[in-house]
Amino acid sequence: MERKRYKIAVLGGTGAQGMGLALRLAAAGHEVTVGSRQAERARAAAAQLSERLGGRTIAGAANRSAAGAAEIVVLTVPYAAQQATVQEVRGQLDDKILVDATVPLVPPKVSVVQLPNGESAVAAVQRLLGDKVRVVSAFQNVSAQHLGELDHEVDCDVLICGDDQAAREVVVGLCQDIGLRGIHAGPIGNSAAVEALTSVLIAINRRYKVAGAGIRITGIGKK
Amino acid sequence: MERKRYKIAVLGGTGAQGMGLALRLAAAGHEVTVGSRQAERARAAAAQLSERLGGRTIAGAANRSAAGAAEIVVLTVPYAAQQATVQEVRGQLDDKILVDATVPLVPPKVSVVQLPNGESAVAAVQRLLGDKVRVVSAFQNVSAQHLGELDHEVDCDVLICGDDQAAREVVVGLCQDIGLRGIHAGPIGNSAAVEALTSVLIAINRRYKVAGAGIRITGIGKK
Repeated sequence: MERKRYKIAVLGGTGAQGMGLALRLAAAGHEVTVGSRQAERARAAAAQLSERLGGRTIAGAANRSAAGAAEIVVLTVPYAAQQATVQEVRGQLDDKILVDATVPLVPPKVSVVQLPNGESAVAAVQRLLGDKVRVVSAFQNVSAQHLGELDHEVDCDVLICGDDQAAREVVVGLCQDIGLRGIHAGPIGNSAAVEALTSVLIAINRRYKVAGAGIRITGIGKK
Repeated sequence: MERKRYKIAVLGGTGAQGMGLALRLAAAGHEVTVGSRQAERARAAAAQLSERLGGRTIAGAANRSAAGAAEIVVLTVPYAAQQATVQEVRGQLDDKILVDATVPLVPPKVSVVQLPNGESAVAAVQRLLGDKVRVVSAFQNVSAQHLGELDHEVDCDVLICGDDQAAREVVVGLCQDIGLRGIHAGPIGNSAAVEALTSVLIAINRRYKVAGAGIRITGIGKK
C-alpha cells in the first residue's frame, strides 16, 4: 500500500532531534519544512539537511509560517521553549495533528525524573490547545544521534500517546515510514510514563557508559 | 562465583506477583518466607508453592514475623494496601533492604497513568521509612503470569531504582538468580517512570490483545 505523503513542519528543526526527524521524514518522501524562531536559522539548517539528502529538498521558514503551511506539525524544542513555541503557532494548528516530542528535562539533573506538576508536559499542551488540535506525543525515547544517521537502524520503539486514535494511527504510519515501530500507548496522559522514561534512559546511558540506550516492547509479536 | 543465599520475606506473597517471585527466588536457592496479614493464608500459599518446588520448602508467616526474620523484604501488595503493610512491618526493616514492587494502579482505570501526588509511590515509602531502611523499587513491569511459570523465559528487563547503589546491586543479583536482567535506573524518584510504565504496558496488552507485554532496554549490550 502506498502511504500518504504529508506536508510536515518540524518546529525546533534546528536541534539534533528535529534535524534527525526532518531528515528521515524527507527521505521517506514527505514534504518537510524546518521551523525555527528565526527564518534565517531555519533556512540554514534546511540547506544543510537538503545537501545530505541529494535529490530531495527540505525547506526552512519561521515557526508560524512553517506550521501554517503544514498538515502535521512536529514539535522538537527543549522543554523550556515548549509553551512559548506552542503559543507562537497556536493559531495555525486547528484541525491538525501536533506531534509533540518534548521531554520535560530540568537541567542540570536530566537523569532524574522531574515531571512538571507531576504530570505529562504534553498533556498540558493538549489542555492549552483544546479539542480543535489533536495532540499526539511521540519520539521522546529515541536517540537524536541515531535518528540523524540515516543508515543506522534505530533499535528503539516509539510509544505513542494521544486521545484521538486516528491521529495516533497517522503517527504510527510516520514511524513506519522512517524505519521505526510505533506502538499505541494509550491516552495523552500516559505520555507521563514515556517522558519520565527518557530521564531513566539518560541515567542508564551514564551508568553503563553508552550513548543511546532505548526501549523495546516485548510480547506483542515481531519488532 | 557462588552467590549469597539470602533470607527473603515476600509480603503479599499470596498474590500472583508475590507467588511468582517467591517461587523463583526459592528455586534459585534463597530461603523464602511468604508473608500475609493472616498467618494461615500465608502458610496455605507456602504449602502450595512448596509442592510445586519438589525438594525445596517455602515457609509462611504473618507479615511482621516474616519481615522480622528476613534479611531482605519484598513487598508485592496491591497499591491500596502498600502504606498499611509498610506501617505494619516498619519496626522490622531497619538496616535491611526493602524491595518494593508496588504499582500505583487506581482501578478501574488501570491502563491510565495515575501517579499519586504526581510522583513515585515507592519514593513516598522511602521518605516514610527514613534513612535506616534502604528502599529499592523493582519488578513492576514483569508479568505475574510469566513469573509463575518456572520454565518460561521472562522476556522483560527489571528497572531498578534506589538511592543506595549497593542495595540496588543486591537486587540486580537477585534478578540474575531468577533469570531476569536487572538494570540500574537511577535514584528512587525515577521509579515514577517505571510505575507509570506498567499502566502503559496494560494499555498495550489491551490494544494488541496480548497478555504480558514487557520492556527491554536496548543499546547496553547483550540482554
